[in-house]
Amino acid sequence: MVIYDISMNIYPGMTVYKNKAEKQPQIEVLRDFKDGEGARESRILLELHTGTHMDAPLHMVEGGATTDAFQVENMVVPCRVLDLTGVEDGIAACHLEGFHIKEGEFILFKTRNSFREDFDPDFIYLKQEGAEYLARLGIRGVGTDALGIERSQPDHATHKTLLGEGILILEGLRLREVPPGEYILVAAPLKIAGVEAAPVRALLMEGKISQ
Amino acid sequence: MVIYDISMNIYPGMTVYKNKAEKQPQIEVLRDFKDGEGARESRILLELHTGTHMDAPLHMVEGGATTDAFQVENMVVPCRVLDLTGVEDGIAACHLEGFHIKEGEFILFKTRNSFREDFDPDFIYLKQEGAEYLARLGIRGVGTDALGIERSQPDHATHKTLLGEGILILEGLRLREVPPGEYILVAAPLKIAGVEAAPVRALLMEGKISQ
Repeated sequence: MVIYDISMNIYPGMTVYKNKAEKQPQIEVLRDFKDGEGARESRILLELHTGTHMDAPLHMVEGGATTDAFQVENMVVPCRVLDLTGVEDGIAACHLEGFHIKEGEFILFKTRNSFREDFDPDFIYLKQEGAEYLARLGIRGVGTDALGIERSQPDHATHKTLLGEGILILEGLRLREVPPGEYILVAAPLKIAGVEAAPVRALLMEGKISQ
Repeated sequence: MVIYDISMNIYPGMTVYKNKAEKQPQIEVLRDFKDGEGARESRILLELHTGTHMDAPLHMVEGGATTDAFQVENMVVPCRVLDLTGVEDGIAACHLEGFHIKEGEFILFKTRNSFREDFDPDFIYLKQEGAEYLARLGIRGVGTDALGIERSQPDHATHKTLLGEGILILEGLRLREVPPGEYILVAAPLKIAGVEAAPVRALLMEGKISQ
């Protein structure tokens, strides 16, 4: 079976949103075979929007639902990777119409973002009217190969449109090696209670799941 | 499709191994709708053996392989939950023989640990000779509903026996609601580079995966 790992590698110095220092992970080794216990133990300081992660409504909606509301039924689901590598600037409804997206689909955007490793301030994002189009269709979730689904929107309209409709947002995917098409998306966010986002090890699998 | 979430909830005050303070997660809210940006962002300080996690050899073998060596082919696999709820003290080969375990299997131990929420210093563990039995069979991985696969072994013989044979160790499972039997195990560790363990959101699914 073909499995694609579509997650960012997490390490100090990795690419983070707007190159903000607070988003850099820190790893501390607490024990390293030197205390007579013969074991290594470490801990990580991780901003919840660093690397591949799933947003909960609380990220952009005051009083919104937290990671506690993520449902296991959405963690292993059919999905479709759309070829949007030709899009410049932002993804609009017109870029999406040709794909005949259906209610309940989980859609991943493969854009030119997947071919760049550093932080691109002009990364491809989802425009508000594109988000409204997907919200009207009633999709299950959307994933992007940028570290943010929106870009410099003071009112966070794209996030709010999606999160307000209960549409899952998966950010920080790596899709360079993935041919557009249909897959099983495995994206089970870490079970951190009561927060506004959680990191994910996301995979794409060819094949089908049956009873 | 029936899906069981077999992961521990991560929050300050959760049950951690030997109730060690350094293993308690800390969550810090960095931004909370009060700075004019209208967003909430948090970060977590997480010891890598807190909650449900997968060990790499480096945890117990100096110079051993890190999380970088985890293979995606092992992250969505058939597995079997064994009913070991009758075992007192430690799991030995004699407890396992009746299950006719085969090479390449991923085995999860359901013990009385799954029915207790606080840290039990006398938790059910895998004895060295039980680990040697599983290593001889050549299993793919073993999961436990304790926070450790071994208990107070000064030389870490159980860990070393398993990790030395490349057998995956998944710790901190919650199996109370799971009937013993066959499942698909979804256990994709967070992609943290070069460390000795990584947290996992682990799921069990009924059904089969086909091409």
